Amino acid sequence: MKIAGIIVEFNPMHNGHQYLIQRIRKIEKPDIIIAVMSGNFLQRGEPSIVSKWLRTEMALTAGIDLVLELPYHYAVGHANLFAQGAISILSECGITDLYFGSESGDIASFYHTARHLRNEKSKLDLLVQEKLQQGYSYPKAYSLAYDLTHKNETKLLDLSEPNNILGLHYVKVIQEHHSSINAHTILRKGAQHHDQSPHTHTGFASGTSIRNALMNGDDFKSIADKMPNESYKILMRAVNQNQILGWNDFFPLLKYRLMSSSTEELASIYESEEGLEFRAMKAIKETNDFISFVSLMKTKRYTWTRLQRYCCHILVNVSKQKMKSFLAKPHPPYLRLLGISLQGQRYLRYKKDSFSVPLISNVKKSFEDLLRIDIRSADIYDMKTSYSEKKSKPLRYDQENQRFL
Amino acid sequence: MKIAGIIVEFNPMHNGHQYLIQRIRKIEKPDIIIAVMSGNFLQRGEPSIVSKWLRTEMALTAGIDLVLELPYHYAVGHANLFAQGAISILSECGITDLYFGSESGDIASFYHTARHLRNEKSKLDLLVQEKLQQGYSYPKAYSLAYDLTHKNETKLLDLSEPNNILGLHYVKVIQEHHSSINAHTILRKGAQHHDQSPHTHTGFASGTSIRNALMNGDDFKSIADKMPNESYKILMRAVNQNQILGWNDFFPLLKYRLMSSSTEELASIYESEEGLEFRAMKAIKETNDFISFVSLMKTKRYTWTRLQRYCCHILVNVSKQKMKSFLAKPHPPYLRLLGISLQGQRYLRYKKDSFSVPLISNVKKSFEDLLRIDIRSADIYDMKTSYSEKKSKPLRYDQENQRFL
Repeated sequence: MKIAGIIVEFNPMHNGHQYLIQRIRKIEKPDIIIAVMSGNFLQRGEPSIVSKWLRTEMALTAGIDLVLELPYHYAVGHANLFAQGAISILSECGITDLYFGSESGDIASFYHTARHLRNEKSKLDLLVQEKLQQGYSYPKAYSLAYDLTHKNETKLLDLSEPNNILGLHYVKVIQEHHSSINAHTILRKGAQHHDQSPHTHTGFASGTSIRNALMNGDDFKSIADKMPNESYKILMRAVNQNQILGWNDFFPLLKYRLMSSSTEELASIYESEEGLEFRAMKAIKETNDFISFVSLMKTKRYTWTRLQRYCCHILVNVSKQKMKSFLAKPHPPYLRLLGISLQGQRYLRYKKDSFSVPLISNVKKSFEDLLRIDIRSADIYDMKTSYSEKKSKPLRYDQENQRFL
Repeated sequence: MKIAGIIVEFNPMHNGHQYLIQRIRKIEKPDIIIAVMSGNFLQRGEPSIVSKWLRTEMALTAGIDLVLELPYHYAVGHANLFAQGAISILSECGITDLYFGSESGDIASFYHTARHLRNEKSKLDLLVQEKLQQGYSYPKAYSLAYDLTHKNETKLLDLSEPNNILGLHYVKVIQEHHSSINAHTILRKGAQHHDQSPHTHTGFASGTSIRNALMNGDDFKSIADKMPNESYKILMRAVNQNQILGWNDFFPLLKYRLMSSSTEELASIYESEEGLEFRAMKAIKETNDFISFVSLMKTKRYTWTRLQRYCCHILVNVSKQKMKSFLAKPHPPYLRLLGISLQGQRYLRYKKDSFSVPLISNVKKSFEDLLRIDIRSADIYDMKTSYSEKKSKPLRYDQENQRFL
């Protein structure tokens, strides 16, 4: 059997994602495609633009057979943690092949770079420490150190590209776990990840440009061309129900949480480090919007993404202790099913007795403790939607007849 | 010197309050009148309808010389705590005479009842315990026990009346502290405290009826007749600035706080008792408005007021520990000045060296720790107003020329 796995956010699904899925389906001809997808909060430290349930609809209509939620702890984490969680879930699901888009498009470079980093580890660690002491953020320090170790190497990856970085972490995790998963990469076409406008490229619009067009209330037709038709319809449902969300919608709650917490309480939040909590406490009093709030906290030391993730942890009240106890568990601690095709259902039936961790379809009482942070983050997000985490069930989709069951 | 003291909420100031102040001024002829006033959260466990700063304006224009804030810890407390805090502040300010409105109007009954309660204490305590064990709320248990001990007494107070209860606590505190303050009571005229409509009585409308008329968007002219003219103008300013506030405005924050807290965190909140935190956690998931939320928590055991106060403590994140350490301090721990007349200013100048606790005019850095909960409750309230607790200064009023300085 060939079981394909992908790691996604679908924020929202666009033609680039569709291209990847179709390529896998047509050229690689897997028996099923499994996606592990972030929930309502994302790796860049943002609420997703539409609920995970709508994004699951997008995934299923675009040809995914199984959608599993990447728990909050991994999903809103740095690249390494994100990769650890995602690969562990896909591995537990029994994928044989991992596919990811990258700016490089050459899988040999990923294996080669991973090997290089292993060989140069001690040298690299020293250089990273040196750069950190000079006040750089971790990603910047790493990138500078990396540049210094690979001067004469031509086959190494360009790690200033976000998808190259994520892909490299996937490959590293696969290697570290001596996993039999084969990694493949597909060259990303057209738009770069962070391009701002959906119009400037003839290739695929990035999620960022679609989000900006939505937030600015631009002509929605310009978006329609950049997305699969089904995903566009799902997105427009969210538009009509006023459920296109972003940090602005959650900023009052973040502000209230900061205003009503003691510094000790804030210091106990995950990623409160080096007095960052004092910066946050001070900044929140001087601003009434999210962008200025993060700008006020920003220093060379912290990337914007790192600060946004910190904001998520404050909003969701994720303590260092909770995070520590989660990370002390085997990875993954559970599989949370968000959506499934009929084909995926057959696969699960065949597979489910071999899972070493619980497969969770409904948030039953007995799972509440295990899922605490996932439930909480969903409950907070759902204060702005019509969903209820406790009452939601995995979506079932009949791909042949193109309808939800 | 004759220094008069009153204990108020002015939520908002109405003709009944004005009548009390004028009677004191004309008949008792004190040198100055001092009011201790709740901040932005009140004894019944509600946000005040307008900010404490507007209520201070009302107080000064109605003839009060000194307005001091009753700290949150006392203000959002049961009658005994409320009285302890208020009397301790007035006593520190050197009042010679306390005036309060009551349904009884006979000060002898207050002294007599206080004495009776002291004499019957052991009997009463037993009866209260018995009633509590039968599942009654504390106020109800107390009231039933009281009824059983005073069958043949005619001069005892009717303790089903809210102002009689508060007044009795004032007198008890004065007696317990062997204070030289003389207590006086003035018969409340016209409307009962909880009457709903401003039209049904020819006497004075209660605060409740004015608040209801405001919340329902009734004809504001009906309100104008029930308030001093200056207070009405101040109130209308708040109406125009959309700053008439109530629990509905803070419910989303309360809901978020409950959704984002662990049960252990909630259990650490002041007045989380007998598993009330579990009732709150359960109820909040089933409702989207404050009234239904409290209704879902309500049992015979807890009065509505007690539950509303609990909601304030959750919103403001007041822990048992914070409350304990506050109550372990000498009472009062500080005097917080909100407003002052020129006459009041002269009195303060004469008096200030004799204060045994800090007189706080501005929230300076050095007072932040002492005022933590007062600042936090104001900051949360001010998320809905244009005030800033840190930047606010006491209001100064020239009574003779009727203008703020």
